[in-house]
Amino acid sequence: MDTNLLKAILASFLREDIGRGDLTSESIFTPDEIGTAHLVARESFVAAGAARLAAQVFAIQNSAVVTEHAVADGTQVDSGKLLLTVTGPVIDLLKAERVALNLLQRISGIATYTALFVEKVKNYPARICDTRKTTPGLRMIEKYGVVAGGGSNHRFNLADGVLIKDNHIAACGSIAKAVAKVRDKVPHTLRLEVETDTLNQVRECLDCGVDIIMLDNMSVKQMAEAVEIIAGSVIVEASGGIGLANVEEIAKTGVDFISIGALTHSAPACDIGMDWSVSTR
Amino acid sequence: MDTNLLKAILASFLREDIGRGDLTSESIFTPDEIGTAHLVARESFVAAGAARLAAQVFAIQNSAVVTEHAVADGTQVDSGKLLLTVTGPVIDLLKAERVALNLLQRISGIATYTALFVEKVKNYPARICDTRKTTPGLRMIEKYGVVAGGGSNHRFNLADGVLIKDNHIAACGSIAKAVAKVRDKVPHTLRLEVETDTLNQVRECLDCGVDIIMLDNMSVKQMAEAVEIIAGSVIVEASGGIGLANVEEIAKTGVDFISIGALTHSAPACDIGMDWSVSTR
Amino acid sequence: MDTNLLKAILASFLREDIGRGDLTSESIFTPDEIGTAHLVARESFVAAGAARLAAQVFAIQNSAVVTEHAVADGTQVDSGKLLLTVTGPVIDLLKAERVALNLLQRISGIATYTALFVEKVKNYPARICDTRKTTPGLRMIEKYGVVAGGGSNHRFNLADGVLIKDNHIAACGSIAKAVAKVRDKVPHTLRLEVETDTLNQVRECLDCGVDIIMLDNMSVKQMAEAVEIIAGSVIVEASGGIGLANVEEIAKTGVDFISIGALTHSAPACDIGMDWSVSTR
Amino acid sequence: MDTNLLKAILASFLREDIGRGDLTSESIFTPDEIGTAHLVARESFVAAGAARLAAQVFAIQNSAVVTEHAVADGTQVDSGKLLLTVTGPVIDLLKAERVALNLLQRISGIATYTALFVEKVKNYPARICDTRKTTPGLRMIEKYGVVAGGGSNHRFNLADGVLIKDNHIAACGSIAKAVAKVRDKVPHTLRLEVETDTLNQVRECLDCGVDIIMLDNMSVKQMAEAVEIIAGSVIVEASGGIGLANVEEIAKTGVDFISIGALTHSAPACDIGMDWSVSTR
Amino acid sequence: MDTNLLKAILASFLREDIGRGDLTSESIFTPDEIGTAHLVARESFVAAGAARLAAQVFAIQNSAVVTEHAVADGTQVDSGKLLLTVTGPVIDLLKAERVALNLLQRISGIATYTALFVEKVKNYPARICDTRKTTPGLRMIEKYGVVAGGGSNHRFNLADGVLIKDNHIAACGSIAKAVAKVRDKVPHTLRLEVETDTLNQVRECLDCGVDIIMLDNMSVKQMAEAVEIIAGSVIVEASGGIGLANVEEIAKTGVDFISIGALTHSAPACDIGMDWSVSTR
Amino acid sequence: MDTNLLKAILASFLREDIGRGDLTSESIFTPDEIGTAHLVARESFVAAGAARLAAQVFAIQNSAVVTEHAVADGTQVDSGKLLLTVTGPVIDLLKAERVALNLLQRISGIATYTALFVEKVKNYPARICDTRKTTPGLRMIEKYGVVAGGGSNHRFNLADGVLIKDNHIAACGSIAKAVAKVRDKVPHTLRLEVETDTLNQVRECLDCGVDIIMLDNMSVKQMAEAVEIIAGSVIVEASGGIGLANVEEIAKTGVDFISIGALTHSAPACDIGMDWSVSTR
Repeated sequence: MDTNLLKAILASFLREDIGRGDLTSESIFTPDEIGTAHLVARESFVAAGAARLAAQVFAIQNSAVVTEHAVADGTQVDSGKLLLTVTGPVIDLLKAERVALNLLQRISGIATYTALFVEKVKNYPARICDTRKTTPGLRMIEKYGVVAGGGSNHRFNLADGVLIKDNHIAACGSIAKAVAKVRDKVPHTLRLEVETDTLNQVRECLDCGVDIIMLDNMSVKQMAEAVEIIAGSVIVEASGGIGLANVEEIAKTGVDFISIGALTHSAPACDIGMDWSVSTR
Repeated sequence: MDTNLLKAILASFLREDIGRGDLTSESIFTPDEIGTAHLVARESFVAAGAARLAAQVFAIQNSAVVTEHAVADGTQVDSGKLLLTVTGPVIDLLKAERVALNLLQRISGIATYTALFVEKVKNYPARICDTRKTTPGLRMIEKYGVVAGGGSNHRFNLADGVLIKDNHIAACGSIAKAVAKVRDKVPHTLRLEVETDTLNQVRECLDCGVDIIMLDNMSVKQMAEAVEIIAGSVIVEASGGIGLANVEEIAKTGVDFISIGALTHSAPACDIGMDWSVSTR
Repeated sequence: MDTNLLKAILASFLREDIGRGDLTSESIFTPDEIGTAHLVARESFVAAGAARLAAQVFAIQNSAVVTEHAVADGTQVDSGKLLLTVTGPVIDLLKAERVALNLLQRISGIATYTALFVEKVKNYPARICDTRKTTPGLRMIEKYGVVAGGGSNHRFNLADGVLIKDNHIAACGSIAKAVAKVRDKVPHTLRLEVETDTLNQVRECLDCGVDIIMLDNMSVKQMAEAVEIIAGSVIVEASGGIGLANVEEIAKTGVDFISIGALTHSAPACDIGMDWSVSTR
Repeated sequence: MDTNLLKAILASFLREDIGRGDLTSESIFTPDEIGTAHLVARESFVAAGAARLAAQVFAIQNSAVVTEHAVADGTQVDSGKLLLTVTGPVIDLLKAERVALNLLQRISGIATYTALFVEKVKNYPARICDTRKTTPGLRMIEKYGVVAGGGSNHRFNLADGVLIKDNHIAACGSIAKAVAKVRDKVPHTLRLEVETDTLNQVRECLDCGVDIIMLDNMSVKQMAEAVEIIAGSVIVEASGGIGLANVEEIAKTGVDFISIGALTHSAPACDIGMDWSVSTR
Repeated sequence: MDTNLLKAILASFLREDIGRGDLTSESIFTPDEIGTAHLVARESFVAAGAARLAAQVFAIQNSAVVTEHAVADGTQVDSGKLLLTVTGPVIDLLKAERVALNLLQRISGIATYTALFVEKVKNYPARICDTRKTTPGLRMIEKYGVVAGGGSNHRFNLADGVLIKDNHIAACGSIAKAVAKVRDKVPHTLRLEVETDTLNQVRECLDCGVDIIMLDNMSVKQMAEAVEIIAGSVIVEASGGIGLANVEEIAKTGVDFISIGALTHSAPACDIGMDWSVSTR
Repeated sequence: MDTNLLKAILASFLREDIGRGDLTSESIFTPDEIGTAHLVARESFVAAGAARLAAQVFAIQNSAVVTEHAVADGTQVDSGKLLLTVTGPVIDLLKAERVALNLLQRISGIATYTALFVEKVKNYPARICDTRKTTPGLRMIEKYGVVAGGGSNHRFNLADGVLIKDNHIAACGSIAKAVAKVRDKVPHTLRLEVETDTLNQVRECLDCGVDIIMLDNMSVKQMAEAVEIIAGSVIVEASGGIGLANVEEIAKTGVDFISIGALTHSAPACDIGMDWSVSTR
């Protein structure tokens, strides 16, 4: 994540939550009242974003805020664990609190959920990866959470990856024709991925220079056959209907990547609180 | 939701997902190839956002896209139900597909989850409402989902509502002092809410012109006592640790509002697909 | 006013006045020529914005500018009074001068004009407040000036306050129906205000849970009767055609708030100059 | 005024006033309820902005709004005169009303005030022009009002005009040196103006290729002498402390331009109302 | 190129050239004076951007402008050839003229220059591609010109392609270590490219799963040896110091891609004029 | 160039090149690895932009980057000359490298090309100036390069200069009518320029208060006659078809300005490299 881009995104989140000001806090506190607050885990989870997201949110609200003790991304924490300490004007800590917590809870939730999948497949070469099923506006940040949880990223958007789907194939007449058409027009720095529903389609792919074959919504048995057919000649990615219950048996088939939309659209948020020790300078 | 503001937000979501273009689709389709696609429920849920969100996303991508059959917000739909039909250039339908689905799935999820709570309390006067625990960048849209599910909205941000919390009270010395300080400075068009942890605090509030008393993390027994003490003189809002399991007994205490962060931070996404019937003009 | 939002607004004002650069000053001064200038009152008025607006404008133009001696908001100053001292690169002081002065003159003008009204009603409980008749683009800043002058703020925009007017009532059939319809849909954190033209409408309001009754363009006699009818049960706001000539007799009727569009649309600007003591580092 | 730039500015004004929506109107009206409203003069003035500003505001809020009968800029109207008729969704007419009126009242106010000055000098060649003492964010629009009132525009910002002031002169050592330094660096498409306080400075200007001499805060007698000295060789602009009381005698001196900050910072707003004839489609 | 993103970019170009308006044309033409103009080649070249860039510029300035006869991208045209006809308000044609021409001249220049290289290597499998040496702000548009001239695109930016250079290798200790480190962290949808200066480095690459080997600033002889060593196992890209004089002999070595910064930083602009046939409606 | 405006432009260039991050460098370097790099001339040229553009680019990417030894604008440098040294986090130096080089190469190219023209006319009073034929988005920066090369600037955009062309004249019926119409409406701070094709048009201009006469695409003989006719009464600008081959004979005619589009649209980029001395803190 580029810092300048991230700052712009986080600033827009603060703007949404603060509007033209915090009526309550600005009525009560003066800008020179200083406080310290601690972001603390209220349950067990894999932390993500303490330094890169939460601490940044406070710093953007007021560059005079000092942040310390940010727990490292990917750390498994227990309830009560200190995740971040922030010291600065009380008004600004209060203004930034909600955005910082909302982000930390969600992104730690994604890291935690990803880690569960990663753990399930740890004895297999398969890597867990995300999809484009992210929350609109949060793609970069949510994909950061996936990596923090031990997963890896699929393409970021429609412009930095090629995925030929059924519509594209139908429009061209065959996988080979679609692949030829696309290969000719996209940067050679990108791999070319094709979504397949059948073993025949898998075989078609092998004949026409595809770099990645996605096995979409196949049964585990089909996947195993596909992996055998492909025999290591190209990258294999399993996708569709994959959950904690079946991810291990899918990994067992020998696929290289398992892409899971639920990592970002269904990860439960973690419980994190902000404890205060306000003082006056 | 103001349409112009909404359009700007949705356009930024499309920009995130499309980047500088859809390399795959732009390589295969010409702008004059027209198709029709149907957004269809893949499970049962309360629909929200077909017309205001999903249809708008397609229209923003290309104003030539025609949308029809948008199911009304708040409709309980079964698997297989048509939610929206879109007809237009295939390239643009493909570009807008992911953002439209991501939004529809999440906001319908929020409506569905809210409706579960609303159903639980239907025999009581209590209304279910949201909090500021929304996804950064999506507050307006997520709060729209809460209303679609039969809930109501709490304040939108720190600038359009007043909520005096423990920090504020501590800084002023007493609830009465905090209330006086704030009342003097904020628009008279806003109600003044105070967060209370104890019945003594509830009593303090009654003496100083508070408009809404929030009962924060109280036991059901405490809440019942608080409602009795307040006796209808001001609005009562229950908050903290409320789920489907205990919401009904909380409603039974007679509180006016029950605010629940989980409506927006923990609602599971609904399963919605996009079925195609591509054709060439 | 949130500092980050304010900075963005002030930066846009500088951009408007500076364009791609100050052709004259950049031709003559080098960036290392330092100067000091004093913003000084050229007449008597109530100062507002020296620290929060004028000093910020200079700091945004160049963070190396040092500002001192900002007179406190709400201070009554006489001609010759130093309002702010700025020291920094001459080029940047010259670039920021016009925007800083334009703002300080206008906002001090609003504070001064507001203070005149506040003084007139000082023996009555009524508070003077503003309206949405502000200069487009300057609402937050102008409302800040009203508070600096001792007034208070009405709602900020259409989204953070509810005001049911004749059109709304006509569309619903009655005040009671309009109130019911709105109450059901807006956050409970907002008070509900209704604009009334007659005493009958005032009575209607009392029966249906209105929080604030606006007496719009009523005669002083009517207002007095309305106040008697309302008898302290809800907040009363006088509005329409109110000036320095009649504000006191309106306050005498016992209304709680007097809202005056002229505070922001007709306050004369104050005369403020910038005196230089340029020196070379 | 370029239409695209203007639209962006007007849209930002609507965003400020509407926020995330009109809570009241959106609770009561559906998007298909159509109404007609008439913007009507409530006093006599010179109208400006009915077509270019007010009508545009409504069109930006919703392109389905139809506007008619816009009175031409510069028209002297009496109380009761129809300035603009708007027909469209009631919700959008209500949302755009305040911004449209605020602009129309202010810009017509500027046109009216300018016209008073223009009338005073109608028997002399002098033209009335504005300054940079405009409301931050409204410069383009306010300068449009000056032209509508019969005045003309001075430079728009620091980048499209050259004005050498006392600071610049002091830094260079003499007017001649300052002029030489600036002339060498700025586009030859711009005239070069120098601010003078004394007749000696006027004489200095004549020797060094100045295009416009500003007579700043001079007495009428001094101005007359300056005009005689200059004898038509360059453009002469009077500035500083000019009001309706003395503008004619200044014009009598033979100056070419009279620049007046009050045109934009002190023009009283005009009284304009919006009368409704709501109907349902 | 996504149309919405492109429109935003083109609109910013118009804003730069028009500022707050076209003082000259707005003084002379009324908005209802219609004209027709023809963009015509003044020399021979490969056209690019008539429909996607120039026509769009006019349409953005005023959606009422009708554009016709856009010559197809990649067409070799002779002097006198009509490239585009535009009909609409004269004011808007004049406002958009310069931006439309500047773009068309530059992008056609890039297409023309690219086509020269493509022609040189037409008997070899090598494809000509661009680099990141584009004009800041114009990358998407310039890369569009490269494709129009028959070339192909390298990565768009630092986020959608991986290129391991000497610094990266030095920091890791070896190519193998650098590749391992990067491969683990970037999406599997991207190919991994390594810049090599020596044949030893080329051999190192073959052992560690590199997808593309860049031969940077090698002699033609070295390149030929590298191609032989690589023997078709991965993609080979020649780069550095390549011009029209030596591109053919480089293609002859059998490399797959030849990347040339000069395509975008040194292509001479084409001469294109705009001929008018103004008429009044 | 105003620093704040420039920073915003440069930041957008970085955003274009970096996207959401530098996948390669962020995979390899940690933020605390510090390096030093030297921007060095690889050929002879006139340097422009080392301090104002390149150094700023690095500082915007990370304010912790220290820049030193920026060669002064307009300096004639030989191959090997150090232009700028930058020290800071390696990640940020790598991220900013390409934008900094692209700008420095182009703007130095413009300065160098301009200096060639300036040298050709050094024995004549004529000044070399630019046009609006700049790269879209880079006008301010490219015009800065022209000045660094010893040239001067023509108007910046359509709003800060007046140029009456054949279309305008045709629409009005005569030069005199066009001039009268425009003069009446534009700020008196702007000179009025008219484009002429014939000596008759030149004579027409002299009768109607034109400030600058552009001799467009005239032969050298015609230009000489025009200069004689004008006889120093107004500024004379030669334009159209001017290159290094004929600029001196045009200067010899006595024109005051020679405007050349090629300065910005056809200046070859200079060769500049970035040499590294990476170290770990």
